Amino acid sequence: MRRFLVVGHRAVTRADFSLDDLAGAAGRMDILLSAANAALLLAHGIRQDAEAALLLLGPPDPPRLLRILGHRVRSFQPDLRSNAALLRKALEHGSRVEREVSPGILASKASFEEALDRLGPSFVYLKEGGKDIRGTPLPADATFVLSDNQELTPEEERAMISRDALVVGLGPQAIHTDQAIVLVQNELDRRGV
Amino acid sequence: MRRFLVVGHRAVTRADFSLDDLAGAAGRMDILLSAANAALLLAHGIRQDAEAALLLLGPPDPPRLLRILGHRVRSFQPDLRSNAALLRKALEHGSRVEREVSPGILASKASFEEALDRLGPSFVYLKEGGKDIRGTPLPADATFVLSDNQELTPEEERAMISRDALVVGLGPQAIHTDQAIVLVQNELDRRGV
Repeated sequence: MRRFLVVGHRAVTRADFSLDDLAGAAGRMDILLSAANAALLLAHGIRQDAEAALLLLGPPDPPRLLRILGHRVRSFQPDLRSNAALLRKALEHGSRVEREVSPGILASKASFEEALDRLGPSFVYLKEGGKDIRGTPLPADATFVLSDNQELTPEEERAMISRDALVVGLGPQAIHTDQAIVLVQNELDRRGV
Repeated sequence: MRRFLVVGHRAVTRADFSLDDLAGAAGRMDILLSAANAALLLAHGIRQDAEAALLLLGPPDPPRLLRILGHRVRSFQPDLRSNAALLRKALEHGSRVEREVSPGILASKASFEEALDRLGPSFVYLKEGGKDIRGTPLPADATFVLSDNQELTPEEERAMISRDALVVGLGPQAIHTDQAIVLVQNELDRRGV
């Protein structure tokens, strides 16, 4: 299983955000949606062994964890706008008890630490300056943790360190979150894991 | 210079396509827009040494070539919808004479072969089953050619072969066009070229 946890520090947690302004009023929801595509989509379908976990920390009712399970999700599209509509529906469920609100989409109110506890068991923190992924052994069944266009907060970084996360880098350039996920997927594909 | 030519076989060539249905009525314009993002965007800006050339072959007035030059373009965003508005404006110029219709965006009526002649000088055709990019020497100053979610037509493939294009693959899985560009960019970044 390949899990990607993406932290959206400003991503709004209201179920009626506008589909017409994902990058603006929705708090860079486009970053989370592009990341989910990179985690889940192949040319001709969905990666059955992948999960995209999106943590939304923007107003008005954070924190929210939305998990999209590749082997169960239906009606997940390359089109960001369609997927944004799926997230809107999932945000209607704000209970701390996780529920499958539509096929393959789990929603709950959960913090970063709670999300880590629920995902796991081992963690890879993708960060500029980390050990180059090429040639670095990766733990089996890992959760890869990425931030949006902001850094993880010091508190979030501490949570990673306390869980012995492996800190891994992807190359010489600072790239977008979805681009980072594409590189990880390719590396795992090549290793056949 | 890194050039990426992406062929949108169904991408519409009307300047008033709807921003609300990029994946549907606009003929998978979302593929071209995501590809342009992968070609041009870094975490904190635009790749100055990159060009995204988009060939639109859908109705009503194909073929159209829209070139986005990293070192000149302004107001290019991660948000696909904003960039779609730039393409709409560029489609208003349908002359065979190429013109810079807004800073860093060149538009013209041009076929696949004409696009190749204008880009060049050497070509890399990204295709499943090609020689693995890792460890394969790549020509300097190359144009990387990719198709949308359809294969290149036999005629387009012949045009590539007649130009001695190097056929390169990226890994064991069939992936989306934008994902392929992300992998090429990372490989070139690592080589420092």
